[in-house]
Amino acid sequence: MIDILNDEYYMQLALELARKAQGQTGINPVVGCVVVKDGRIIGVGTHLKRGTGHAEVHALKMAGDEAEGATVYVTLEPCSHHGKTPPCCERIIEAKASRVVVATEDPNPQVAGRGIKRLREAGIDVTVGLLGDKSNAMNEKFNKYITTRLPFVTLKTASTLDGKIASRTGDSRWVTGAAAREQVHTLRHQHEAIMVGIETVLADDPQLTTRAAVDAIDPVRIIVDSKLRLPLAARVVTDRSARTLVLATEGADESKRTDLEQAGVEVIACGAGPHVDLKLAMLKLGELEIGSILLEGGGRLNGAMLAAGLIDKVILYYAAKIIGGSDAPGTFTFDGFAKMADAIQLTDVHVELAGADICVTGYPQYGEQ
Amino acid sequence: MIDILNDEYYMQLALELARKAQGQTGINPVVGCVVVKDGRIIGVGTHLKRGTGHAEVHALKMAGDEAEGATVYVTLEPCSHHGKTPPCCERIIEAKASRVVVATEDPNPQVAGRGIKRLREAGIDVTVGLLGDKSNAMNEKFNKYITTRLPFVTLKTASTLDGKIASRTGDSRWVTGAAAREQVHTLRHQHEAIMVGIETVLADDPQLTTRAAVDAIDPVRIIVDSKLRLPLAARVVTDRSARTLVLATEGADESKRTDLEQAGVEVIACGAGPHVDLKLAMLKLGELEIGSILLEGGGRLNGAMLAAGLIDKVILYYAAKIIGGSDAPGTFTFDGFAKMADAIQLTDVHVELAGADICVTGYPQYGEQ
Repeated sequence: MIDILNDEYYMQLALELARKAQGQTGINPVVGCVVVKDGRIIGVGTHLKRGTGHAEVHALKMAGDEAEGATVYVTLEPCSHHGKTPPCCERIIEAKASRVVVATEDPNPQVAGRGIKRLREAGIDVTVGLLGDKSNAMNEKFNKYITTRLPFVTLKTASTLDGKIASRTGDSRWVTGAAAREQVHTLRHQHEAIMVGIETVLADDPQLTTRAAVDAIDPVRIIVDSKLRLPLAARVVTDRSARTLVLATEGADESKRTDLEQAGVEVIACGAGPHVDLKLAMLKLGELEIGSILLEGGGRLNGAMLAAGLIDKVILYYAAKIIGGSDAPGTFTFDGFAKMADAIQLTDVHVELAGADICVTGYPQYGEQ
Repeated sequence: MIDILNDEYYMQLALELARKAQGQTGINPVVGCVVVKDGRIIGVGTHLKRGTGHAEVHALKMAGDEAEGATVYVTLEPCSHHGKTPPCCERIIEAKASRVVVATEDPNPQVAGRGIKRLREAGIDVTVGLLGDKSNAMNEKFNKYITTRLPFVTLKTASTLDGKIASRTGDSRWVTGAAAREQVHTLRHQHEAIMVGIETVLADDPQLTTRAAVDAIDPVRIIVDSKLRLPLAARVVTDRSARTLVLATEGADESKRTDLEQAGVEVIACGAGPHVDLKLAMLKLGELEIGSILLEGGGRLNGAMLAAGLIDKVILYYAAKIIGGSDAPGTFTFDGFAKMADAIQLTDVHVELAGADICVTGYPQYGEQ
């Protein structure tokens, strides 16, 4: 690759600093920052963890006194409010930077242009919108949560080309190959929670942790379990490797609830039943500051979540094989639509290979519900 | 694109001449030829129609006396036997070409290296194997038929991402978009026959002709119809736009058979029943010199053909949408396999976009049957 030295050159680095921190900032956005003066990078920073320094603070600290007259490249509008840390705008003004290049405005209602305004009022030259799409794409989870307080839900499936997630006898080892499975563990690292149905736990007793080639972050485990059938001996209960939340109904057995709670599991009642009210569940998870969920359900949970309009993004892996079997379970089990024209359309569809498997990503568009 | 003048430069043109003739040479291969001398193209040719001149003959005729000392680029080994036309080897020797570059050997057991041997014996410098993969790919139908006398079967499906070819109520207008449908009509042009099940005819009364932006070749129509339920008023019977073959069983109604035959339809009995013996059908279609079939069946016919190991290539279109419905018909209806590891694997998988739809192509690999 032959580089071209311009604003994009530095913003690309700031974006890459942000991108690699995905999964470690909780409900905060990922943000990268690069400070440049007299043709040299004098500071770099990225937001590492909620409650700790913002990207600009790290980068300006590295730059020190040299920051006077420098250009600050930052992937998200600097904050103007006192949150868990002081406003970054003030830090930039104090450092006497002369120019700030911002990839995109912060959709956080507490910022939303105020940071840019504050910088301009202080006499700083501000450019907004450089590679903004890229910044927004890596903060799609944050962007939903900060404006709605609802978690961003990414569905991941792995099926054959005829849409089956297992054979007619239930055999599913393995649908996709090693490359796709490595990607899925990276997705777990990049989401705050993982969600499955009780049937999956009863069938496979999974750990639902992140297994990567290097240390990784385990997501919060969410089990949809209307009747509290979760065994106390299940690995998600006993292994304590991550927090476990169970979504149940109000009528679920009280003593089982107590047993689970004593075992360290958090039980959340979501509606009168007989099934978990999934919309209510999303509200309650949002209140618990679960900003993003990787849904790895079976056909029934996937279908119910889709039918309720609760899936924001789909990542569909297809193994290049055909298994057949009309009763073999599919990726989505729900009533479906009578008319082809009413099917749920995906936008922004991308297709790529994952080893020998095919990966389709897109964003479901829901009509009025 | 910046060109590089070398053997490939001319072979690419010969391949393109061949490629564009796909569909018009019947059970013959497509072949292109370019004759070059002193840095100039002096002749080009392509095989246009079975029983007419081969590519080399056209190109050498254009070159005339100048062919002496020229290089002949040809995408398939020149024939050495007297078929419907005299052997091309003799024509090249007679023209006194000094060098021949061949993309690939002719798998026809009547040729199979004899053409190359004959040219070398005549003192001509022969290079073999330049872009041979490309030549073989465009003759994959010919290559199967000439060595087995069985038709090459390409399956085409159009489904949602959850593998449904229609909604639970049977609505299928439309699954895929205009771009994918244009490609399918091109596939019809490029296959000698199109095959569907009687259910498709009863449901849609299709014409099964090729509708393209320009004049196109209509394929032979093959209807799988064990019990001869094909109505005499069906468009495939009445419109006479192309030959119609019906595959039935021996026990099918004799008087209906007579009626259909009087209406111009050819009825072929394939086994005692109750279902058409599809393997026997392929043998009989091969005997009728049907070298390639585009299978556009419903789930049942697709599933039966796949389970019988009779599909050579699949072209699977996916619309970027999800329709749901456990009873909605899928792309393949057959018993399927108990173990995921036994699923029919595709090789040589390619993925590309067709407008807003996704197109996956591959070649099923069957275990011992």
